[in-house]
Amino acid sequence: MAERSLQPKKVSESRTVMTEMVLPNDANAIGNLMGGNLMRWMDTVAAICAGRHCEAHVVTAAVDHISFQRPIQVGEIVTLEAVVTRAFNTSVEVYVQVFSSDIKGHNPRRCNHAYFTFVAIDDTNRTPIEVPAVIPLSSEEQDLYDSAARRREIRLILSGRIKPKDATEMRRFFAELE
Amino acid sequence: MAERSLQPKKVSESRTVMTEMVLPNDANAIGNLMGGNLMRWMDTVAAICAGRHCEAHVVTAAVDHISFQRPIQVGEIVTLEAVVTRAFNTSVEVYVQVFSSDIKGHNPRRCNHAYFTFVAIDDTNRTPIEVPAVIPLSSEEQDLYDSAARRREIRLILSGRIKPKDATEMRRFFAELE
Amino acid sequence: MAERSLQPKKVSESRTVMTEMVLPNDANAIGNLMGGNLMRWMDTVAAICAGRHCEAHVVTAAVDHISFQRPIQVGEIVTLEAVVTRAFNTSVEVYVQVFSSDIKGHNPRRCNHAYFTFVAIDDTNRTPIEVPAVIPLSSEEQDLYDSAARRREIRLILSGRIKPKDATEMRRFFAELE
Amino acid sequence: MAERSLQPKKVSESRTVMTEMVLPNDANAIGNLMGGNLMRWMDTVAAICAGRHCEAHVVTAAVDHISFQRPIQVGEIVTLEAVVTRAFNTSVEVYVQVFSSDIKGHNPRRCNHAYFTFVAIDDTNRTPIEVPAVIPLSSEEQDLYDSAARRREIRLILSGRIKPKDATEMRRFFAELE
Amino acid sequence: MAERSLQPKKVSESRTVMTEMVLPNDANAIGNLMGGNLMRWMDTVAAICAGRHCEAHVVTAAVDHISFQRPIQVGEIVTLEAVVTRAFNTSVEVYVQVFSSDIKGHNPRRCNHAYFTFVAIDDTNRTPIEVPAVIPLSSEEQDLYDSAARRREIRLILSGRIKPKDATEMRRFFAELE
Amino acid sequence: MAERSLQPKKVSESRTVMTEMVLPNDANAIGNLMGGNLMRWMDTVAAICAGRHCEAHVVTAAVDHISFQRPIQVGEIVTLEAVVTRAFNTSVEVYVQVFSSDIKGHNPRRCNHAYFTFVAIDDTNRTPIEVPAVIPLSSEEQDLYDSAARRREIRLILSGRIKPKDATEMRRFFAELE
Repeated sequence: MAERSLQPKKVSESRTVMTEMVLPNDANAIGNLMGGNLMRWMDTVAAICAGRHCEAHVVTAAVDHISFQRPIQVGEIVTLEAVVTRAFNTSVEVYVQVFSSDIKGHNPRRCNHAYFTFVAIDDTNRTPIEVPAVIPLSSEEQDLYDSAARRREIRLILSGRIKPKDATEMRRFFAELE
Repeated sequence: MAERSLQPKKVSESRTVMTEMVLPNDANAIGNLMGGNLMRWMDTVAAICAGRHCEAHVVTAAVDHISFQRPIQVGEIVTLEAVVTRAFNTSVEVYVQVFSSDIKGHNPRRCNHAYFTFVAIDDTNRTPIEVPAVIPLSSEEQDLYDSAARRREIRLILSGRIKPKDATEMRRFFAELE
Repeated sequence: MAERSLQPKKVSESRTVMTEMVLPNDANAIGNLMGGNLMRWMDTVAAICAGRHCEAHVVTAAVDHISFQRPIQVGEIVTLEAVVTRAFNTSVEVYVQVFSSDIKGHNPRRCNHAYFTFVAIDDTNRTPIEVPAVIPLSSEEQDLYDSAARRREIRLILSGRIKPKDATEMRRFFAELE
Repeated sequence: MAERSLQPKKVSESRTVMTEMVLPNDANAIGNLMGGNLMRWMDTVAAICAGRHCEAHVVTAAVDHISFQRPIQVGEIVTLEAVVTRAFNTSVEVYVQVFSSDIKGHNPRRCNHAYFTFVAIDDTNRTPIEVPAVIPLSSEEQDLYDSAARRREIRLILSGRIKPKDATEMRRFFAELE
Repeated sequence: MAERSLQPKKVSESRTVMTEMVLPNDANAIGNLMGGNLMRWMDTVAAICAGRHCEAHVVTAAVDHISFQRPIQVGEIVTLEAVVTRAFNTSVEVYVQVFSSDIKGHNPRRCNHAYFTFVAIDDTNRTPIEVPAVIPLSSEEQDLYDSAARRREIRLILSGRIKPKDATEMRRFFAELE
Repeated sequence: MAERSLQPKKVSESRTVMTEMVLPNDANAIGNLMGGNLMRWMDTVAAICAGRHCEAHVVTAAVDHISFQRPIQVGEIVTLEAVVTRAFNTSVEVYVQVFSSDIKGHNPRRCNHAYFTFVAIDDTNRTPIEVPAVIPLSSEEQDLYDSAARRREIRLILSGRIKPKDATEMRRFFAELE
C-alpha cells in the first residue's frame, strides 16, 4: 500500500473533470435538470478532487450558497471541473465549476459554481487527519487561495462555530462599505 | 383541469415528508451517505413542497449554505420534512430539516437543515409567475417568516444581484455587534 | 446500542410517510406508473414502519391482494402512508395507503391500499423473534386491529399453512351469507 | 405497422423468461432481497408476457396474495417465468414463478409464485380492448386455465366489484367443507 | 455448500435467457437504446451463463468485435440468449444473441450478437481455476465449438499475447484467399 | 440554433474526459467492476466525444475487440478519455482509454482501451449525414489516424460488408509476415 504524503501539492495534481449526459430521470416534468441532481454531481466531482489532494477518504463538511441561473435541459452534456483552493488543518476547500452545452457542442455556457469543504478521515478510527497544503501557481489559483479565508469565516459563522462579532474579516468587509 | 389559486395558504397545506432508506450505492467507500445524495433528497422534498404551495411547476433558484455535522450510515432511515417559510413575488423559500435513525428507530437525531429557493414557472411560456403568500400561524412559522427577509438579502448579495452596501439588513446586523 | 423493548406501542409511534415523484423510468410506454414500481414503494414504506414498531430488522412474509383502479401518471407526486394494525407473536401486519396528485397538488385522490406482513428477525442468528403488541386508539385503528385476525386466517389458507376447513372465521363469514 | 390479431393463442407463444442478478441496492441491511424488488421484477415479466399475448399495451389491474417463504441473498441469480393462464374479455391472468440459485448454479430452488391480472389498453383512447383467448395444451396449462375462474371470483370480491353472497364458486368451495 | 464439479457439461445446462424493457434512461436523445447499455446487458447474461457452466465466479476477459446494425427504440422488449461455445483451461467463450420486438410482440428481429470470454476465479485467492469442458450436441453447437479456436487466436493476437506470425489459423485463412 | 459546420476539426476540440466512482451496484459479488458497466461508460464518453466532433446526434455502429486485463475494485475512481482518430464519410472512429486509481489517487494504472465507431444522424429524417474531417497534430494523433484505415477494414470484414479477399491492407499485413 502506498505511503500517504503530507508534502504541499499543486492545484493541477488533483484537478478533476467529470462529464454527464442529462437523462430523462434527472429532470423534472418540464425537462429541466433538477437542482438536486446537479448538486449530487458537484459533490461527487469535488469529493474525488479532495480525496486525491488529501490522499485520504473525505466527507462533505459544508457547501456554500449555490445559485442556479441558467436552466439545463434533458439531453445536454454537463461538464464539471473541480480544483482545490486551500487547505486548513484537517479540511480542504474545493471550487467546482459547471459548464453545459447541447449534444452537438452548441450553446456552450458556464452555468454555475460552488465551494465545497471536505474533512479528511483516517481509515481505521474515522477521525479527522491533517491534510497537505495547497500551492497556488496561477493568479486565478492565488485569488481562490486568498479569498478562501473569508469564505471559511462565513462558514464558521453559519454553522455556529464562531460568533458574528468574532468574524474579523466579515466585519471589516461591511465596515469598509460605510 | 383545476384552476390555479393565488389565495394566501397556510404552511400546513404544503408541508411534505419524505422517508428514504440509505442504500449501498448512496454511500462512499467508508459507508457514509454522500453529501450529494442527501442534497438531492433535500432538493426533491423541497421542490414538491414548493410545487404544492405555488400550484405550479418550480425550478431551484438557490440553496443556502449547508453544514454536515453528523454522518449518516448505510442502512439508516432518513426522514426529510419541508415547509414553506415565505413567498416573494415569483419565488418561495422552503425550509428542509433532516432526521435520521437506524432501521430499528434507535439513535434518532436531527442531522442538518437548509433553505432552498424556488421560482414558479408558467407551463406554456416557461416564465416566472406570481405565487401565493404564506400565512404563518405558529411562533416557529412566524420566526421562519421574519428571518426570510434577511436570508433573501444574503442570497441577492451572493448571487451578485445587489451590492453589499445596499444590504440594509446585513449592515445593521453587523453594525449592532460593534 | 439501544436496548430493544417489547412494551406494547401505539400506532402513531411507527406511522411512516413516504413521498415519491413518478419519473420517466418508473412508467410504461404509455406513461402510466408500472404496478411493480408502486408495489416496491409500498413494500419499502411498510418495511420501515414495521422495523420501527418491532425495533428489529424485518423481512416481507406476505402481501395480500392488491387492486389497481386509478392509473398514476409520470410527473405525479405519490404519497404513501403505512401504519401497523396488529402483531402476532413474531410478525406484524402493516396497512399501506397510496395517494396521488399532480405536481401542483391538483387532482388529489386515494389510489389503492394493501396489507403487508413482516416477520422480525434477530440480527445474529437470523431467526424470528417476538414483537411488541399494537395498542389501537382511534376507532379506525380498532377496526384495522379487529379485522386483522380474519386477514391472517386467509393468508394462512393461501400459503397452505392451515386447511380451509380449519378457517373458522372464513367459514362463519360465508355461512352467514346463506 | 402489424395488424393486431384476436385469434386464440397457445400459452407458449407469449411465455417470457427474465433473469436478474441480485445487486447490493436490491437488498436490505441484512443482505436479503427486499420483497418489493422481487414484486417489481414479477410485475415486469408478467406485463411483458401479457403484452405479447394481447398484442397491446397492458396495465396491471390486480396482484393476488403473495407469500415469501425462502429468502434470496445478494449475489444470487433469480429466474422468473411468466405464462398466461386465461383471458376474460379485456383482461388476461398471468402466472409467475420465481426460481433462485447462487452465481455458480448451486442451491437451486423454487422461491414463490403469484397471479397477476392485466387489462389491455387501446393506444389512442386509453380504453380497455378485447383480448385473444388462451389455448391450454398441457395438463398443467389446463389446470391453470380451470382454476382461473375461481381466482377471478376472489379478485372481484376483494376489489368490491361483486358481493360475497354472489360468489358462487367460493360459497360452494367452503360449503363442501362442511 | 455444493461441491464444484469439473465433469463436461452440455450447452443446454447453462443456457441463459434475459428479457429487458428499454426505459427512457437507457436511450439517447433521439430515442435509440445506447450501445453501451446493450453491451452491459450482453455482458450480464453472458456472465451468468459462464458462472453456471464453470460453477464459479467469473470475470470478463474479452469481448470480440460487435456491430450494431438495427436500432432498438425506447419501449421495445429486448431478449438476450447466452450459450457457452467452448472451454479453454481456465476460460470459457460465451455466444450472446440479441432479439428485439415492440411491446406487442410485433416487428420481431435479430439485432446483433457477440462473443464474450470469461475467466473462472477461485473464491478465496482470486486466481484462475480450471473449468469443465463443453459438450456440443446440435450441429449449430458443433459449429460454434469448432470456430471458437480461430476466434481465440484472433483474441490472443489483439491482446498482444501471441505474435501475428504465430497465428497459424489466421495466416492459413488469408493465404487460402490468394 | 447554431449552424452545423463541416470544417475539419482538431482532435483537441472534442476530447472528452469522464470520471466515475465504482459503486457497489457496478460490481459483481467478488467486488470487481463488471465488464459490462465499464463498456457502458466507454460508450458514453465516446458518444459524447463523437457528438462534439460531428456536431450531430450519433449512434454506436461498432466496437472493436476489448481486453480486460487489470481488474477494477469497488470504491476505485475510473477516468475515461476519448479522442476522435479519423472520420470516414458519415462515421467517426473514437479511441477510448481507461485509467483507474483508488480514492486516494494511489495505485494509478492504465486499465484498457478500445475503438468505437459512430455514425452521425440527421435530426429530422434519421439518416446518416456527412461528418467533418479530423486534423491530427501530434505524432500520437497521426499514428491513430494512419492505423484507423486498417481497423476500418477489419470492421468491414467482421460485419460482413467486404469479403476477406478484398481486404487489401490485411492481406498485405499477413503476407509481409511470410
